[in-house]
Amino acid sequence: MAEAENKQVIFKQYIEGVPKETDMEIKVSKTELKAPKGSGAILVKNLYLSCDPYMRGRMRDFRGSYIPPFVPGQVIEGFGVSEVVHSDNPNFKPRELITGLTGWEEYSLIQKTEQLRKIQQDGIPLSYHVGLLGMPGFTAYAGLYEVCSPCKDEYVFISAASGAVGQLVGQLAKLHGCYVVGSAGSNQKVDLLKNMLGFDEAFNYKEELDLDAVLKRYFPQGIDIYFDNVGGDMLDAALLNMRIHGRIAVCGMVSQQNLSDAKGIHNLFNLITRRVKMQGFLQSDHLDLYPRFLEDVTGYYKQGKIVYVEDMNEGLESAPAAFIGLFSGKNVGKQVIRVARE
Amino acid sequence: MAEAENKQVIFKQYIEGVPKETDMEIKVSKTELKAPKGSGAILVKNLYLSCDPYMRGRMRDFRGSYIPPFVPGQVIEGFGVSEVVHSDNPNFKPRELITGLTGWEEYSLIQKTEQLRKIQQDGIPLSYHVGLLGMPGFTAYAGLYEVCSPCKDEYVFISAASGAVGQLVGQLAKLHGCYVVGSAGSNQKVDLLKNMLGFDEAFNYKEELDLDAVLKRYFPQGIDIYFDNVGGDMLDAALLNMRIHGRIAVCGMVSQQNLSDAKGIHNLFNLITRRVKMQGFLQSDHLDLYPRFLEDVTGYYKQGKIVYVEDMNEGLESAPAAFIGLFSGKNVGKQVIRVARE
Repeated sequence: MAEAENKQVIFKQYIEGVPKETDMEIKVSKTELKAPKGSGAILVKNLYLSCDPYMRGRMRDFRGSYIPPFVPGQVIEGFGVSEVVHSDNPNFKPRELITGLTGWEEYSLIQKTEQLRKIQQDGIPLSYHVGLLGMPGFTAYAGLYEVCSPCKDEYVFISAASGAVGQLVGQLAKLHGCYVVGSAGSNQKVDLLKNMLGFDEAFNYKEELDLDAVLKRYFPQGIDIYFDNVGGDMLDAALLNMRIHGRIAVCGMVSQQNLSDAKGIHNLFNLITRRVKMQGFLQSDHLDLYPRFLEDVTGYYKQGKIVYVEDMNEGLESAPAAFIGLFSGKNVGKQVIRVARE
Repeated sequence: MAEAENKQVIFKQYIEGVPKETDMEIKVSKTELKAPKGSGAILVKNLYLSCDPYMRGRMRDFRGSYIPPFVPGQVIEGFGVSEVVHSDNPNFKPRELITGLTGWEEYSLIQKTEQLRKIQQDGIPLSYHVGLLGMPGFTAYAGLYEVCSPCKDEYVFISAASGAVGQLVGQLAKLHGCYVVGSAGSNQKVDLLKNMLGFDEAFNYKEELDLDAVLKRYFPQGIDIYFDNVGGDMLDAALLNMRIHGRIAVCGMVSQQNLSDAKGIHNLFNLITRRVKMQGFLQSDHLDLYPRFLEDVTGYYKQGKIVYVEDMNEGLESAPAAFIGLFSGKNVGKQVIRVARE
């Protein structure tokens, strides 16, 4: 096995506020294309990498969270789809495809192999394993079914609805017989929601001065389920429009990710009068459902009942800008980086 | 049956902000001590009336809530314990004791008799039927068991802990094997919590500059259950101290009752990272549990396992001031008005 050049995205230092491209740097190092003997590790070639808002949380120097911070000077870690190049682990063979946590680089040595999942190619795009069939898709599934318990004919509102999570929440809710409205940050995204993703209605929140009024317009009867991907003003407006026994899944709060002190939510009193449940969740608490999720969603996709919109950037060099773009809503659909051709 | 003088507390007009004594007025009218023939109503003499913070919500001109607003110029409605004077209803006889919604006056004609509960005198103070065994006690019971699902050895925090609801929440949580800390607004109340109500610890929030710090002091391991009776800053501080899979029962928000636009809650992001459930509730959604509640709590009281602290004011004239006092924490324990001697 030879040594190869290995382009990497390095995390520079802990940050506050909105992440910038310069918080990361591209470096080229050398990597032996081999897993050390006795390590139990595998050496993989990364094909697709996933840009996800939760990664912002790992750029803070805070150890009390559910996931440790990045290490300054080290390669950024994230979900990916990779091909095994060399294995010191009897469970993995060269040429096999895997998905799980890997590095933002061309080649990665993966020590923690227990959390990897092998991919059998079956006509589903490989990159979907970090989106539709990966953490974001499972977040949608667990959040909708475990936190929101949807019933047929209920009124469902989803913010950041064309994003990696929102687009699946909406389609699953539609399959469940709900009335589904999504908000997004551009007319292109609104068009996607209505004409491709099958939402009943959608609106561009940037064109609305009064979020309470727009929710009253789309939900004259009120909202049974709010799948909240943004927090902030949209959450505050949704609180004014919840129906009795409504449920709010608190998922991303992407609008608040960069703020140490958010603007504040003013309408929580409505939780009492309407007896609303508001629940934060992480997909990782529900992994027992993962096999059922994979089966369900793979089936829906193959039957043509759901689609998935990706925003694919080419080349590892494009990763920092693509990641930064998440926080201004630049991505249209799930943001993925193609690192190498399959 | 004769006509009698009937002192009444009249609701004057809809208000904003903190209620004042002058929002109510005492009036003396005449009432026939008789339920009209064919009305199915009962004429009662009120013995005890309950002052509850939720009543502030009925002083707004807002019909979208779970309970309609008071009618300006009419007698204030509230929970009470009353003696039947005359009955046009075969289910009620003179001299029987009942509890339920009645008027803030000496004599009331009650038309809606379905929601009344008859009281069998059994050594429990009659006034407890609007406190320990009434709506506030049942709020404590339903909120703790149905919303918070306590487990033995969990860490429980209760704000407004010596109030009508909080004092029972704490004692039930102790009986359940939890570690219980309460906050209150005076050293007298803190003393009650620690020395009479059996809380493990208690503190006077008015003597604390940093609520986050005080919660970290009393809960170095964090909070599993926060029974929130106040909202506002205390809720924000508790959000910083919740444990993974913690639960917040959103009950009173008494600190926010008078504000159309509260100061804002800034730490909701912690709902996600700690996977916290925050749920608003009303006891009236759980009435199927009421018989079990009555049996359980009556049993605990008779066995000396729980106590209940009341703040008893004498005379209907004292009702407006007693009600106002709730919003500055003047009451020590459950606020009750004795209208007539038993």
